[in-house]
Amino acid sequence: MKAEIIAVGTELLLGQIVNTNAQYLSQELAALGIDVYFQTVVGDNKERLKEAIRQAQGRADVLVFSGGIGPTQDDLTKDAIAEVLGRDLRNDRPAMDKIAEFFADRGVPMTDNNKRQALVIDGCTPLPNATGLAVGVAISDEAGHHYIVLPGPPSELKPMFEAEAKPWLLHQVLTDEMPLYSRILKFAGIGESALEDKLLDLIDAQTDPTIAPYAKEGEVAIRLSTKAHDIQEADKKLTALEVQIQSRLPQHMYASEDVAIEETIVKMMADLGLTVSAAESCTGGMVMESLTTVPGSAAMLRGGIVCYSNEMKEKLLNVPHDYLEGEDAPGAVSREVVEVLAEQIRMITDTDYGLSVTGVAGPGYSERKPVGLVYIGISERGSETEVFELRIKGNRDTVRKRSTKTLLYRLWLRLLQAEKQD
Amino acid sequence: MKAEIIAVGTELLLGQIVNTNAQYLSQELAALGIDVYFQTVVGDNKERLKEAIRQAQGRADVLVFSGGIGPTQDDLTKDAIAEVLGRDLRNDRPAMDKIAEFFADRGVPMTDNNKRQALVIDGCTPLPNATGLAVGVAISDEAGHHYIVLPGPPSELKPMFEAEAKPWLLHQVLTDEMPLYSRILKFAGIGESALEDKLLDLIDAQTDPTIAPYAKEGEVAIRLSTKAHDIQEADKKLTALEVQIQSRLPQHMYASEDVAIEETIVKMMADLGLTVSAAESCTGGMVMESLTTVPGSAAMLRGGIVCYSNEMKEKLLNVPHDYLEGEDAPGAVSREVVEVLAEQIRMITDTDYGLSVTGVAGPGYSERKPVGLVYIGISERGSETEVFELRIKGNRDTVRKRSTKTLLYRLWLRLLQAEKQD
Repeated sequence: MKAEIIAVGTELLLGQIVNTNAQYLSQELAALGIDVYFQTVVGDNKERLKEAIRQAQGRADVLVFSGGIGPTQDDLTKDAIAEVLGRDLRNDRPAMDKIAEFFADRGVPMTDNNKRQALVIDGCTPLPNATGLAVGVAISDEAGHHYIVLPGPPSELKPMFEAEAKPWLLHQVLTDEMPLYSRILKFAGIGESALEDKLLDLIDAQTDPTIAPYAKEGEVAIRLSTKAHDIQEADKKLTALEVQIQSRLPQHMYASEDVAIEETIVKMMADLGLTVSAAESCTGGMVMESLTTVPGSAAMLRGGIVCYSNEMKEKLLNVPHDYLEGEDAPGAVSREVVEVLAEQIRMITDTDYGLSVTGVAGPGYSERKPVGLVYIGISERGSETEVFELRIKGNRDTVRKRSTKTLLYRLWLRLLQAEKQD
Repeated sequence: MKAEIIAVGTELLLGQIVNTNAQYLSQELAALGIDVYFQTVVGDNKERLKEAIRQAQGRADVLVFSGGIGPTQDDLTKDAIAEVLGRDLRNDRPAMDKIAEFFADRGVPMTDNNKRQALVIDGCTPLPNATGLAVGVAISDEAGHHYIVLPGPPSELKPMFEAEAKPWLLHQVLTDEMPLYSRILKFAGIGESALEDKLLDLIDAQTDPTIAPYAKEGEVAIRLSTKAHDIQEADKKLTALEVQIQSRLPQHMYASEDVAIEETIVKMMADLGLTVSAAESCTGGMVMESLTTVPGSAAMLRGGIVCYSNEMKEKLLNVPHDYLEGEDAPGAVSREVVEVLAEQIRMITDTDYGLSVTGVAGPGYSERKPVGLVYIGISERGSETEVFELRIKGNRDTVRKRSTKTLLYRLWLRLLQAEKQD
């Protein structure tokens, strides 16, 4: 089954927004076993949109539209499809009621153009919009083409695809096929190509479940997918493969769901009743900022210190002056200093773990040390402090992010050990 | 003049990456006065790519390609265009030399497929690749179509467009027209629609220079563009409009180039010889992390403290215990506490400014205070401490980011005053 994704909106052609919907829909369709051959973006112009629809009919079975179903006269997606199909538009009663209620609640008069959002194509399955006002559309024509119309805002498109369009595809279009079940596996401390290397024989031999890379910026993930009669059968197959993968990468696979490593860390620390703090130099707060993206992190992250200047390293973190300055001093970017930072922050904040990082983020050398040289440290109550030297290639942004990710990965490894001892 | 952007790459159709190149190219072409009517994404398949090219020939004058010019057999963009145009491919000598040198430098043997990156279409203008190995192509055909072929990685595509493709367009294609000059204006502390409101008459009356919103995530910007015989004439026109806009929004327009407010702040503080520190609760380090994205920030950001727990607020920042706990205590999220935090961090680190933030990022209430209630503070040596109460709508991520942006905006306003007094 072949699909084409058609995004409608002049704002995309002007570059005012980026077409993230195409990525989301491509991933979702691929997971359903539907091949996307083309993605098209067209402006809010009915004739050009109709041209794009006719062209897509010639090369795809499933046409998925995003955008162009809002209240303005520029919103023409449903009109264009209805004209191509030779059908009428009609009002969807539940959508109409929802719009009326929305304006009544706010005590604002409803203007006529807002009614446009309740329009659907005659004979279609309306797709309710849980997070917005514009109703979606799913419809099949006599020639065997299937059309799905979704809103443009990702906050409306994603829930509508998940709750309405995907079930419609599964029940109305992919009827001959068994339902598809997926599982995301997340990895840290390993690159995409090294991961592929470790799993090469599994990837090459894959039939059921399938293994596919699952793209997320700055993260390494794969998606396992299988068709099964029910979720029990699917779970059995997915778990068998997951166990196999996990046994090859016990030091890297940190989750079997789509979560960031920060979330896994916060959950593990909460379960173990452990606390953490950090002393950050070149990352300027990024490690703590990452951990505090997770709700509930207040229970384990007590706080920490950003010691961007040597003065602060001395004053707030008791780094000996002769570590920092003088001819034979190891300098701020050194094993010696990162070790003191980790131990001191742990003692000052009285936490189970103390994290630290110091390095040359660039641009430009510092202390005659190269850009990308970074030291990270982990101090643990009653254990030796671990120190790692990193040599990161890339610009300031890359050096800071990679340092943060590596430190979190190392903390996760320590928590794995703590779990075993628990 | 009409353009179509054609992105080539199966990784886009699988949703493994998002097509940010289309946004960049759309903005750049719009700034040149070229209208983009369609964006197309097609996989690494020569027949489908040729189909897309022929179709674009029917509806555009300028065809801009991204991707599909790397070393593998899947990289077919130049092959497909050459076939459609009935031309041969040939080696570009400078590109070939660069590839050979690259491998010689690394002491790695060059495999044959790498030579593919030096291929160009007969009769074209080769576009050198300053940040990669694959050479680009610019060529016009007899029917008056213009083709530009760029690499897929944004780190190669952007410099090649700016340094090579844009001048080619200006000199070979837009010859009848005067060159176009642009200027970006950046704003803070104001939303996009409020900004538009303030400039509505200017936007409605715009002819030359034109005013267009310039999209950047989480930032508010506009682009002024004008055609002129030379840069002096352009500067005069752009500056006249800039001054007009600036005089309407002196408290919001922070730069007349595309920089983040952090960069402006670091530059102003460096010029004034001022220093800053921060005490962060709900933002968990985001304020300091933002400032340290800027190279050279070490000169002004001494450091700071993330005081995520009440204990740390007391211990490291001397917040009185009875501010934090007890029936009548104002609590950690309060004017009283944010004021102490700002003043204490300034004194502890001995800086000119002390920033502070405490709030309820959510999810879930805290101290019976609503999600989105945030206090920010700025303490200045020898001045009264300013405290602001924010009520931010949105999720945890939004609350944290908006708090950070607002605090940076308030700091910039203080620096404006300091500049005047200087």
